[in-house]
Amino acid sequence: MRVVVPFEAGDPKTRLAPLLDADERATLARVMLDDVLSSIRRTGHDPEVLATASLGEDVESRVPVTVDERPLSTAVNALLEPPMAIVMADLAIATPDALERVFDAPGDVAIVPGRGGGTNALVVRLDGYSVDYHGCSYRDHLTAADELGAHVTVVDSYRLSTDVDEREDLVEVLLHGEGETREWLERAGFEPVTTGGRVEVRRRDGDSGRRVDRGELECER
Amino acid sequence: MRVVVPFEAGDPKTRLAPLLDADERATLARVMLDDVLSSIRRTGHDPEVLATASLGEDVESRVPVTVDERPLSTAVNALLEPPMAIVMADLAIATPDALERVFDAPGDVAIVPGRGGGTNALVVRLDGYSVDYHGCSYRDHLTAADELGAHVTVVDSYRLSTDVDEREDLVEVLLHGEGETREWLERAGFEPVTTGGRVEVRRRDGDSGRRVDRGELECER
Repeated sequence: MRVVVPFEAGDPKTRLAPLLDADERATLARVMLDDVLSSIRRTGHDPEVLATASLGEDVESRVPVTVDERPLSTAVNALLEPPMAIVMADLAIATPDALERVFDAPGDVAIVPGRGGGTNALVVRLDGYSVDYHGCSYRDHLTAADELGAHVTVVDSYRLSTDVDEREDLVEVLLHGEGETREWLERAGFEPVTTGGRVEVRRRDGDSGRRVDRGELECER
Repeated sequence: MRVVVPFEAGDPKTRLAPLLDADERATLARVMLDDVLSSIRRTGHDPEVLATASLGEDVESRVPVTVDERPLSTAVNALLEPPMAIVMADLAIATPDALERVFDAPGDVAIVPGRGGGTNALVVRLDGYSVDYHGCSYRDHLTAADELGAHVTVVDSYRLSTDVDEREDLVEVLLHGEGETREWLERAGFEPVTTGGRVEVRRRDGDSGRRVDRGELECER
């Protein structure tokens, strides 16, 4: 089965801008992509990347890259051919075990919701299905499957439902990551901080003069 | 196996205070408890509640309740006797299938991390283990198991890793809930709102004159 990983090559992870500058966000996105590709390979599949722009020789020598500048859903639908899996590039705590549960799931469509109504992974095994990642795509993807009379399996995986877009998602990488992304964040000075509620992240002030986000991240323990 | 559900009877869910008044938060906590108890029963287990105060005849006629005013960890350790499962009371999107994966997990200790480093469900099958829910309890519970030489299974379930403490957790209930909690939230006027990023919640302005939280919940679609 083909496994496609869409990748935003432009200005990725803008919601992390308060914590990481543009270069760092671009690097983080590449490191997460590498982790996702590595986990997919360890399931025995050969991933391919669908990118909004060329990713350069370094990446393209290691993985097949299709460049399509159009919006995500349009680009995915242009190459969607069942059976095919579409796995988001920012699933930084995905493991081969978790991915295998999706790739091996029964039914015409297998879906993993992302936190906040997104679609983090999708396996399409029937003709005529198209994706729409805009808005509450999880619901829309279920509806689209219903309209085709498809049998749908929803896969219940915390590792795959966790995509990395926002500050609090970094905590999950620090706590549960098993790949390069966790190491990258640690080298960049991030550490979990125990507060009165959920664990949050703090960025240490380093020699590099990086911005440090204080105030709301006081350790309350 | 005994399945214990700790329940904070005092002023629960304070992080939802911007959205729900104290009475509403108390009701929400009870409705979530009922959903969790119902899901546990459907796995074939008879749950019991460990509460910080009496829950009244209405609840106590339906489920065994132990009252212990001490802090959560102290109270749990006082009754911990393997094999035993401890399931948090605010897992509003837990399903019997997801719980069965934990109850049936192999090993001496099975654990489900909560978002932000907590411990949402724990199965203890060996003597000498004690819990500590303070701080980053997921890591601490793994360490405690290591120190006993225990074999640990981490269960990867989005439904069980989602505890309901914060505003954005309500979205998950609205999107994935299969019990009374979702209906309660809908009756209270909550609905998912598509924004530029993750889906958020909005509370409709009703005849009841309830507070409505605006501003940050503009629909950007």
